[in-house]
Amino acid sequence: MKTILKLAYDGTPYRGFQYQPHQPTVQHELCIAAEAAFGFPCNITGCSRTDSGVHATGFVAMLEAKDPADVLPASIPTGKLPRVMNTHLPPDIAVCAAAVVGDDFHPRYSVKSKKYSYIIYNSPARSPFYKGRALWLPHSLTDDAVSRMSECAERFVGTHDFTSFMAAGSKITDAVRTVISASVMRLDDTVVFTVRADGFLYNMVRIMVGTLLDTAAGKLSPDDISAIIEARERSRAGTTAPPDGLYLTQVYYDPMPEWQCN
Amino acid sequence: MKTILKLAYDGTPYRGFQYQPHQPTVQHELCIAAEAAFGFPCNITGCSRTDSGVHATGFVAMLEAKDPADVLPASIPTGKLPRVMNTHLPPDIAVCAAAVVGDDFHPRYSVKSKKYSYIIYNSPARSPFYKGRALWLPHSLTDDAVSRMSECAERFVGTHDFTSFMAAGSKITDAVRTVISASVMRLDDTVVFTVRADGFLYNMVRIMVGTLLDTAAGKLSPDDISAIIEARERSRAGTTAPPDGLYLTQVYYDPMPEWQCN
Repeated sequence: MKTILKLAYDGTPYRGFQYQPHQPTVQHELCIAAEAAFGFPCNITGCSRTDSGVHATGFVAMLEAKDPADVLPASIPTGKLPRVMNTHLPPDIAVCAAAVVGDDFHPRYSVKSKKYSYIIYNSPARSPFYKGRALWLPHSLTDDAVSRMSECAERFVGTHDFTSFMAAGSKITDAVRTVISASVMRLDDTVVFTVRADGFLYNMVRIMVGTLLDTAAGKLSPDDISAIIEARERSRAGTTAPPDGLYLTQVYYDPMPEWQCN
Repeated sequence: MKTILKLAYDGTPYRGFQYQPHQPTVQHELCIAAEAAFGFPCNITGCSRTDSGVHATGFVAMLEAKDPADVLPASIPTGKLPRVMNTHLPPDIAVCAAAVVGDDFHPRYSVKSKKYSYIIYNSPARSPFYKGRALWLPHSLTDDAVSRMSECAERFVGTHDFTSFMAAGSKITDAVRTVISASVMRLDDTVVFTVRADGFLYNMVRIMVGTLLDTAAGKLSPDDISAIIEARERSRAGTTAPPDGLYLTQVYYDPMPEWQCN
């Protein structure tokens, strides 16, 4: 039996999820909070790394006691874990739910797919409420532009070699991934790109967004997107959008963990 | 001719809009930004005070040169004012739009009505994204509870003496106000109370929210709300909800200013 947590965090002040010495990271805050909650040190394993400044509403992390003599699940009932952990976490990190899973579960290797959203705040003036939490695009995206972006996003769907959408210098050799769904829609004064895939390459979503913004400007058509994928060349795709708008929203396992919070 | 600005601000770090010596206030930040933008000192007049920690998406403030020899509207075109001011404002304050109005316009005395929203974040675990920006209510509000809250909110509509919904110790003697509309609705994981009135007493919206939360818990019926209004006694209404969830969203004038932003 293993204990996993579903996390939400505002990534603005953090250098990503993964521990780095002398840097603020989400993992480091979790380690401190877990030790305070349980009274013994824990190892934390995340479902993925997230970059500096990237946010999450559905990140999954596993807790394991460092010393096998310490027992997890601890005396705290699973459904109470969020509340207990949250008293020890800073306000920009929260445990939303907890679950107990089998011993063969691994938060990263057991992932079937993940979903990300990227928020573009589309208004002529910047918003205090989206500071660090969206990409601000002052010039108005017309409904036509949003439709075109969505049509272009659909070209990502399917199994492709996404080398064109991988940060240059990445050491990954197999860049084939399956995108399950991809769409763009307007929600009030935001335009949101949502993409679900069985895996993501380094900066993949942010390069997709940079490229979709070129389609909004009319520089690229849906066929151009297919051609960029085909090319397998990073230089053919658009720029890497900033981390501010990116949220890891959902991680899918089979079966899905039975999340508890009460 | 006078120049007015529409402001959005995250009120969390501020002691309200109104200038107070040695305290962080929105008005103080605006004064600094206006002088930097125009090169001469300005007087700033707000449409209302907002309390410490209260937010705005549609606050209206008037700019006037302190020295009559300085001329406003300045050489900066009205539609460009938001961008120019925003370069001098901290990230938690933004000018969304600007307008030029007649000399008889006063940002407070010319107000016909104002609209506020109060956001309740209703989820078992706290959210990093609503920190300081909503009241967190962990126990689930059922659809029935939200309907009951909305039914009760409707009892606020009309012209009433709202003494029961005014902070004790307030020096206002005429507590008669006309509530134009009031409703409660669920939006995803939030429950939002929206109220528009020709004027508001000190803490009026926050006491309304505190009282509506008692109706959600089944402690009060719509008739009880009417009786509480009738009583004209602060002690009859609920507690004062915290400022975190409160937003001044719209100020109405007749005619409405022609807001510009480009």
